[in-house]
Amino acid sequence: MNQKITILGAGLVGSLLATLLQKKGYEVTILERRLDMRKGNLAAGRSINLAMSQRGWAGLELAGLKAAVEEIAIPMYGRQIHPIEGESIFQAYGKNEEAIYSVSRGELNRKLMTLAEDCGVNIRFNQKVIDVSLETNTLQIEVDSRISSYDEHDLVIAADGAFSALRNSYLKTDRFDYQQFYIPHGYKELNIPAGARNSFQLNKTALHIWPRINFMLIALPNLDGSFTCTLFFPFEGEVSFSSLTTDQEIRLFFEKYFPDVMPLIPNVVEDFKSNPSSSLVTVKCFPWIYKDKSMLIGDAAHAIVPFYGQGMNAGFEDCRILMDIIAENHTNDWKNILSLYQQRRKINGDAVADLALQNFIEMRDLVADPIFLERKKIEKELGKMFPDVFNSVYEMVSFSHTSYFYALSCQKAQDTLLEKVMNAGRFEDSLQSTAFRNDLELWIATYAAEVKAIETAS
Amino acid sequence: MNQKITILGAGLVGSLLATLLQKKGYEVTILERRLDMRKGNLAAGRSINLAMSQRGWAGLELAGLKAAVEEIAIPMYGRQIHPIEGESIFQAYGKNEEAIYSVSRGELNRKLMTLAEDCGVNIRFNQKVIDVSLETNTLQIEVDSRISSYDEHDLVIAADGAFSALRNSYLKTDRFDYQQFYIPHGYKELNIPAGARNSFQLNKTALHIWPRINFMLIALPNLDGSFTCTLFFPFEGEVSFSSLTTDQEIRLFFEKYFPDVMPLIPNVVEDFKSNPSSSLVTVKCFPWIYKDKSMLIGDAAHAIVPFYGQGMNAGFEDCRILMDIIAENHTNDWKNILSLYQQRRKINGDAVADLALQNFIEMRDLVADPIFLERKKIEKELGKMFPDVFNSVYEMVSFSHTSYFYALSCQKAQDTLLEKVMNAGRFEDSLQSTAFRNDLELWIATYAAEVKAIETAS
Repeated sequence: MNQKITILGAGLVGSLLATLLQKKGYEVTILERRLDMRKGNLAAGRSINLAMSQRGWAGLELAGLKAAVEEIAIPMYGRQIHPIEGESIFQAYGKNEEAIYSVSRGELNRKLMTLAEDCGVNIRFNQKVIDVSLETNTLQIEVDSRISSYDEHDLVIAADGAFSALRNSYLKTDRFDYQQFYIPHGYKELNIPAGARNSFQLNKTALHIWPRINFMLIALPNLDGSFTCTLFFPFEGEVSFSSLTTDQEIRLFFEKYFPDVMPLIPNVVEDFKSNPSSSLVTVKCFPWIYKDKSMLIGDAAHAIVPFYGQGMNAGFEDCRILMDIIAENHTNDWKNILSLYQQRRKINGDAVADLALQNFIEMRDLVADPIFLERKKIEKELGKMFPDVFNSVYEMVSFSHTSYFYALSCQKAQDTLLEKVMNAGRFEDSLQSTAFRNDLELWIATYAAEVKAIETAS
Repeated sequence: MNQKITILGAGLVGSLLATLLQKKGYEVTILERRLDMRKGNLAAGRSINLAMSQRGWAGLELAGLKAAVEEIAIPMYGRQIHPIEGESIFQAYGKNEEAIYSVSRGELNRKLMTLAEDCGVNIRFNQKVIDVSLETNTLQIEVDSRISSYDEHDLVIAADGAFSALRNSYLKTDRFDYQQFYIPHGYKELNIPAGARNSFQLNKTALHIWPRINFMLIALPNLDGSFTCTLFFPFEGEVSFSSLTTDQEIRLFFEKYFPDVMPLIPNVVEDFKSNPSSSLVTVKCFPWIYKDKSMLIGDAAHAIVPFYGQGMNAGFEDCRILMDIIAENHTNDWKNILSLYQQRRKINGDAVADLALQNFIEMRDLVADPIFLERKKIEKELGKMFPDVFNSVYEMVSFSHTSYFYALSCQKAQDTLLEKVMNAGRFEDSLQSTAFRNDLELWIATYAAEVKAIETAS
């Protein structure tokens, strides 16, 4: 008899994992809180775009959905940085023309749901899980104000996001460590419509950033020629959501800080007023599992801020690693599988949360700094010169399957190395000197030893 | 018409605060989850003893209960440190024979409840608050499995401990920062009975510590001649709760690590097996208030580990500061009062949590270290030599009303100062040298400037 698995949440991670598990031979049911988004114009929740990178593609490939998503994905080869004055600057993400991909969250989710159903997964919509009894694995479900119990499963997997119902039950168990914290910034979405004949009004092959030190605007391309913009902005303070109250203040703010964007967003004042300001939470917790009965995955285990574009990517990697572990073990030995899953993923969930917080500083502040831009260039050169030894943290995170924990751990060694290189002067000039090239070989050897030590320890 | 206040929890903090507010002219009701502990042999919850110090006495004094509690309090003038081998060492807490006081939690709680009722407070027992609607301030209360609503108040104050029901409702609000984490150690209570004719089998004027690096046993005196012992011990690992499973293992453990205690605890194996192992949580959160409607106080706002003996003391200080703020403002301007309360207390709640975590290291490890004992002696000497400038962090915390935040902030400056002094050699010898005394004057001046800067900044 097949084992039965109930997944909470038919979002990106829940739908992908359901497909993978059903294909593996389990009988999977998804309980989704919302109505079926395919039957109306319902928002997918949260932001409209996401940035798909290596780890995301790997998850889709496992499910056989890579080719179909490639058709709706727009490659972004780097950051197009827009200062207040002067020309914008293009900064490539990778040294080999790698890209991250702008994908519509809603489109992707619809495809994943349909694929899951095609594989035999039963998705039940409008099912709000209000409580979980951990010992009996019984779910209390509210449907149209009526509450019923559900326990027809051997395993419960919560892919129900940053405010997971299962995790709420974990919170009441003894010795459950839990942390949720908000950054002082929120976000608001705006839209740059397509130009004439669905033309793009900005370079479509880049992620656009208007870095303004304590806040920033970004824009990602959509298939229809429009761009989805997101303003990341403090809730409180002198220049903040709370300080912009009148039409006049909103207009002056955009004119002052985003003069090149103003003409592209026709209704910026109206949109600013009518679109919500949403908060940004990070969640860390432990354990991620309860005995052999249930587990957390994706945002439910590690909600992160969006600044590395890794939320969905990390969740898909959770799925891939879980499937690896199932393949390496007796398929129903949940005690062992869940324990190995938690052991392998917890440090990476924490690491990607920290990377994402760090990258906000980089995006809103550092990318406007010429020294930082120079550093990013040198990182790529070093990667080309020493391909077996050096790969920038950004590239590890976005274009490899290197563990997040390892990538984060390498950050300090990279900082030290780059500081040495940059202290020697302009990189192109330095390279003319034999003494520098000898020094560089030595520094690289030191770096290699440091990261080797990290690898051994982790 | 009097304003009505509902307090959740008739523990130490809830009962004291109810008394203070009722005396101020408010109409106070307490809802207590448990039955009336005065009507039976119910445990007061958590540990049996507590260590009352300056901040605790100040709270009792406000309520007029200081003299009555002094009658049931046993002064402990220092730590009696018991190494595995050799004589025990007495280390005074203060430079002027200050003491902390062993008080029975249950006795104190009963006195506080009775005082509250004598002042006109209405304590309703067996009332389990299961949910709070923050906007309407409506409490859902379960009494004998029947649920009813209660909202007859202008303000709700949660003094309902580390797992506060009100804080659970705060947790669901946007932008509420929350952290709960457990240390790897739990605790188990044991008992050293009185000797013949209610005699004390250990020095009754000290807090006894058996420091064993990664774990420790402590003992506090009771009025009846017995001592309450608490073993702080890792849950997992080579020597841990999980490793002691047989009678033999338990006996050998006590024989090996606590040979002088073994003869004093007649049923140590039985007690070890039958008494629960409890976990130790720290909680930090923000905000502590909701609009002008409700607030958290004591452990509900800042649950801490017990190693500084400051849990109740910090809660009583919360009460005193809240009463100060009420006195300085319009008595019903809750928006302003709650905002000031949070502003003044949040940093101190976090600081005492950190101090308590630090003190575990000190108690279980450092007090067995001769260098550390020497340092503690020098601290007292410095306090006598420079009374206007230098006061050890321990003395600030236990024997003054200096803010926890300031005390914690001074730690680093004290570490630096003491390191300089101790590097010069044995303090008594050093003092013979004019050069050293000149250096010391200079170091003290530097220290004074550093702590002045901390004071100005905070």
